[in-house]
Amino acid sequence: MARLLKVGITHGDINGISYEIILRTLSDERLTEICTPIIFGSAKLIGYFKKLFGIENFRFNIIKDATEAEEGVVNLVNISQEEFKVDLGLATPEAGRAALLSLDMATEALKNGEIDILVTAPINKHSIQSDDFHFAGHTEYLQDKLRDDSDDKALMILFNDSARVALVTTHLPLSHLPEAITQEKVLDTITRFDASLRKDFAIAGPRIAVLSLNPHNGDNGLIGNEEQTAIIPAIQEATQKGIICFGPFAADGFFGSGAYRKYDGIVAMYHDQGLAPFKVIADNKGVNFTAGLPFVRTSPDHGTGYDIAGRNIADETSLREAIYKGIDIYRNRVAYLQATHNPLRKQYVEKGADKTVDLTKESL
Amino acid sequence: MARLLKVGITHGDINGISYEIILRTLSDERLTEICTPIIFGSAKLIGYFKKLFGIENFRFNIIKDATEAEEGVVNLVNISQEEFKVDLGLATPEAGRAALLSLDMATEALKNGEIDILVTAPINKHSIQSDDFHFAGHTEYLQDKLRDDSDDKALMILFNDSARVALVTTHLPLSHLPEAITQEKVLDTITRFDASLRKDFAIAGPRIAVLSLNPHNGDNGLIGNEEQTAIIPAIQEATQKGIICFGPFAADGFFGSGAYRKYDGIVAMYHDQGLAPFKVIADNKGVNFTAGLPFVRTSPDHGTGYDIAGRNIADETSLREAIYKGIDIYRNRVAYLQATHNPLRKQYVEKGADKTVDLTKESL
Repeated sequence: MARLLKVGITHGDINGISYEIILRTLSDERLTEICTPIIFGSAKLIGYFKKLFGIENFRFNIIKDATEAEEGVVNLVNISQEEFKVDLGLATPEAGRAALLSLDMATEALKNGEIDILVTAPINKHSIQSDDFHFAGHTEYLQDKLRDDSDDKALMILFNDSARVALVTTHLPLSHLPEAITQEKVLDTITRFDASLRKDFAIAGPRIAVLSLNPHNGDNGLIGNEEQTAIIPAIQEATQKGIICFGPFAADGFFGSGAYRKYDGIVAMYHDQGLAPFKVIADNKGVNFTAGLPFVRTSPDHGTGYDIAGRNIADETSLREAIYKGIDIYRNRVAYLQATHNPLRKQYVEKGADKTVDLTKESL
Repeated sequence: MARLLKVGITHGDINGISYEIILRTLSDERLTEICTPIIFGSAKLIGYFKKLFGIENFRFNIIKDATEAEEGVVNLVNISQEEFKVDLGLATPEAGRAALLSLDMATEALKNGEIDILVTAPINKHSIQSDDFHFAGHTEYLQDKLRDDSDDKALMILFNDSARVALVTTHLPLSHLPEAITQEKVLDTITRFDASLRKDFAIAGPRIAVLSLNPHNGDNGLIGNEEQTAIIPAIQEATQKGIICFGPFAADGFFGSGAYRKYDGIVAMYHDQGLAPFKVIADNKGVNFTAGLPFVRTSPDHGTGYDIAGRNIADETSLREAIYKGIDIYRNRVAYLQATHNPLRKQYVEKGADKTVDLTKESL
């Protein structure tokens, strides 16, 4: 029997806007018609925020674990009976602990197949640090917890309906950046991005644009030489492997001229280079997707929103999009695997460059 | 008698879109009603490009030097009788030489007071390099030629009607970036930007936002520490000096959330951080302004456009805006200096924090 996909939602940093956007998104009943939402949070906190924001029409079904989730309602797995103290707009150890508890339990449920998709609300990377969490962000944490093959590697993709941006480096200090941009790493990102665009976004022959590291594309070596030593060789190698990719392009002109619209994917060298222009383009509707792992995880593309926490003005669009797009990606993966699971074997022929590929190794 | 301002326009890289956008801008006769345009270029090249683009209604008045410029017409100072070879879309030494000749002559005219405003078309920084030109770009060249005081220092500002971005570093390889971001340099940029916003943009009490160097604002030191060691101390020092400034802010969220609209100026740490999102916002109407020098220079915010050279599809909006905004800035400076040239001296009073400032030292 067909069932709705189960979407696990972490509550993120409770001192930010996470409960506000979760409650507002899930109080729209149409959402339970397209998936089964399961919040990993606290009934007491929901009560607190419902009252704070005057949200009346929010009902939820408390369950012991995700296996008990019911369709047609919002489910809540209580991560603790504890009463977490909310300090709106502040980074507190208590909020960090609550965020980690939610994330740990939801990730475990994802690994065990109790949920199909993980959607994470924003955390404060400072307060969540502990003996159990020593990562720069969700992406790095999930790579550690969810890889089940030595070749699995998380790739951070930010996207909306008109642009998809993958990052070669993510939460890295700028001072470590140049040494991190190697031919191998750029090629690896292009290759994984290409695979994800085919598998997760259902694009058969994706066209990928690669940005330069230095301003003005390095101006032929006048402003830095990583384009010559790493990026151009990586593009050439990817092209030889049959990937359709172009560049490098100077980031400002590439985004400013609208050239980005011509490509299915954009490889940015670092966080702000890709994300600052992307977020202007996405206008608060961007979604963060962790590709390259055997599970589907999405999140809104914004942070904890400490500056507007509790003011009832947060925009829940990005979280809602994260749920929708997570479902799309899950379905694309299933369709891709079904289509490629048992391919007709090609005969080797002497002429031409036909190749045969063993696709049965692909896993969801 | 009132006269129109004289705007000198360099022809930039002749293998790019520069003549296309110059001819299209200046073939609108309304432009000669608000200023006296003087192209530093070549009559032969104008003839070539007029024919190439089918532009009929473009008349020009050939003059020996800018002092002969007439109002009501487009003037041309022939930089050479030579026939420069055009190789559309290619970086050639010949185009580099033609670009430098135009820039040298226009800059000299600016220094001598023969023109009031300099508007530069885009150059290729590679082909223009020579014994006489060993700069990373226009900004650095003009700083060298036009400073007439040891305190003069060029500040690159990109702006449109809704955002103004100043850069702490400009055409710098990424690998040199972290060492270049010092407290002194950030403070210097904030201070010069504040002065320019008052003097060139007629904003009495400008509110300035400062971006972080590292992603996520360094996440309290988890991702790099230049925020703690350089940027925050610079903001504090600027605040003590009476400048209204805020931050640091993470670039992606700052632009993505629209927070940038709340500030009169934005200080970005490096080229792509400020310019990639700015150019998306500006939608091809951005203008580059070199503040901090005793002369007014603007330019379009795009490059040579080699990829679309000769195709008759270049958008001249940014060049036209550069001319308009250059005139605005010139007038703002005149008004500012007239208003502050001979101020009433304040009496020192014992109470309160009133200060007196010697504004007569300001020069245009």
